Amino acid sequence: MDISCKTAELFASYRSDVQAELKKIINRSPLPVRNILRYHMGWQDESGYYCQRKCGKFIRSTLCFLSCQAVGGDATQISPIAAALELVHNFSLIHDDIQDGSEKRHGRPTVWRLWGQSQAINAGDLMFALAYLALVKLKENSIRDDEIIHSVRLLSEACQELCEGQNLDIEYEDRLDITVEGYLNMIRKKTAALIAASTSLGAYLGEGDDKVPYFHQFGEALGTAYQIRDDILGIWGTKESTGKSVGDDIRQRKKTLPVVYALRNSNSEDKVRLEKFYSQRSIQGEDISTVAGILVGSGARDYAQNLAEQYYRQALERLEASGVESVRQTPLKEVAYFLVERDY
Amino acid sequence: MDISCKTAELFASYRSDVQAELKKIINRSPLPVRNILRYHMGWQDESGYYCQRKCGKFIRSTLCFLSCQAVGGDATQISPIAAALELVHNFSLIHDDIQDGSEKRHGRPTVWRLWGQSQAINAGDLMFALAYLALVKLKENSIRDDEIIHSVRLLSEACQELCEGQNLDIEYEDRLDITVEGYLNMIRKKTAALIAASTSLGAYLGEGDDKVPYFHQFGEALGTAYQIRDDILGIWGTKESTGKSVGDDIRQRKKTLPVVYALRNSNSEDKVRLEKFYSQRSIQGEDISTVAGILVGSGARDYAQNLAEQYYRQALERLEASGVESVRQTPLKEVAYFLVERDY
Repeated sequence: MDISCKTAELFASYRSDVQAELKKIINRSPLPVRNILRYHMGWQDESGYYCQRKCGKFIRSTLCFLSCQAVGGDATQISPIAAALELVHNFSLIHDDIQDGSEKRHGRPTVWRLWGQSQAINAGDLMFALAYLALVKLKENSIRDDEIIHSVRLLSEACQELCEGQNLDIEYEDRLDITVEGYLNMIRKKTAALIAASTSLGAYLGEGDDKVPYFHQFGEALGTAYQIRDDILGIWGTKESTGKSVGDDIRQRKKTLPVVYALRNSNSEDKVRLEKFYSQRSIQGEDISTVAGILVGSGARDYAQNLAEQYYRQALERLEASGVESVRQTPLKEVAYFLVERDY
Repeated sequence: MDISCKTAELFASYRSDVQAELKKIINRSPLPVRNILRYHMGWQDESGYYCQRKCGKFIRSTLCFLSCQAVGGDATQISPIAAALELVHNFSLIHDDIQDGSEKRHGRPTVWRLWGQSQAINAGDLMFALAYLALVKLKENSIRDDEIIHSVRLLSEACQELCEGQNLDIEYEDRLDITVEGYLNMIRKKTAALIAASTSLGAYLGEGDDKVPYFHQFGEALGTAYQIRDDILGIWGTKESTGKSVGDDIRQRKKTLPVVYALRNSNSEDKVRLEKFYSQRSIQGEDISTVAGILVGSGARDYAQNLAEQYYRQALERLEASGVESVRQTPLKEVAYFLVERDY
């Protein structure tokens, strides 16, 4: 199943709505900090010249819009919350790139590489603050006050989880004893919480109150599947498709699912080799493909892809359980399929 | 004028209210990240053992409580916003310490020194998210929904300014051409905006609507005076009183007011020497006292102290212009005096 023309159109129109909202908010910031934010969003190059670069898939805002529409809500009203979700996601990317020492994102130097760590920390903080200024703009779109406050709570709880997950992710860097359960708990917080907030906020603001728990579960399962797929692409994706350097996740010794699985399930010889690689400060050169080979040999790639598909099916099952009319589920299902089967 | 017993009692009781609120919020976070936040707040040592360390003056929450009370509001209702202000302030301190490379705060190793930069960035982010979770708790204290949303807006605007100011502060590190006006714009955003938010939120939630602009101006002028006093103490304070290493601000080549002033107003010989010192990567050893000497010689210390007192008088004038009964102004005036005349 590919994305149908109709869903692709929806995708594009939502994306342009949220981009417009993001530009209004970010362009209110004064120079010189505005340059950093606009660069990160792909709207200008590092010298300040206008450009239009691909900057992410706008997954969270799209899921928010589609969830709102699925429960019969008016998606045009909620672009401020969609913008807030993208701002939170992007603040976390700017900080993540510092924490991981990543030099490239979408094929361009990361913010900290160009402006230094201090400015990058600060630019992320500013984006976080702007997310809340986006959110209070819901008032202009006749969203009720109690709904806005509840949205502040849901968004902040998701941010709290995101940071708790990031804390575990960083802590895992120096550990070899992580269980699959520990890993799943970490990505539930680090990735799935904000995606679950996106689907549940969409359903909530679309007035689908009784359906909100199902949309939350849908988003959480989908976010988990999405992160596992990301782990797979981080090892076996190509630079052309992902925009990242191949093997970055191995180079940085990230404890992604294939690694966590292989550290527990390889034969004893490979286990010793893997433990040795993952005890070094970094993994370089030919060692990267050696590690990738060990992972494949242990069955980690298949295991991870199967688990991603299992969470994907769980996501669909939760969406169906919501009782939303089948035809209204279609765009969400198409996006879900795209997220789990993508090769970028 | 010292702080009277009555104000000191108020101070202590507010402080214990806000501490209780902060503990409720921070203790909801799971381990291991909770340990980092509790350490930063001075509630436990680095091994996780309970302790009670001095951690800041709680200026922002105290000003918020006192402003609420000054306009006749019920200060007991607003401890969630007071906690939110302290959480924002502390998130900014954790990130500031990374950005400045500061190794100590209140005589203890900073968060990044103990847990590394990545965890410190993340711990600051979590504190920022918790500030909004504190804020939505105003609902439990019968604060109206529209007032809560307006508070989200005011707090977020202050955070936006704080980041804009921090952006300038970092950018100034490598410049020698900063004007006093540029410096004042930077500290108005970096420091005074959150203090102005503290006084205006207090007055706003205390239902002193017509007085809010005066309280904002009072906070902004006081915050400016406070930061200038901080600059003076950062150069001429003692380690015992400030808890920081003496000369840290010179060592880190911070463009504080005395430096900005002296770079423009020293005699030509000293100007050349200062420019040379401030073009180095850092200023070390005996050079620190040489720089401090040049600053005194240029009249920068007196200039800064006079300017602090000028903003202090402006703050008092704005408070008086608010029309709040004189007796109700007293605690705020006492705190203001303390902030500008303090030697720590």
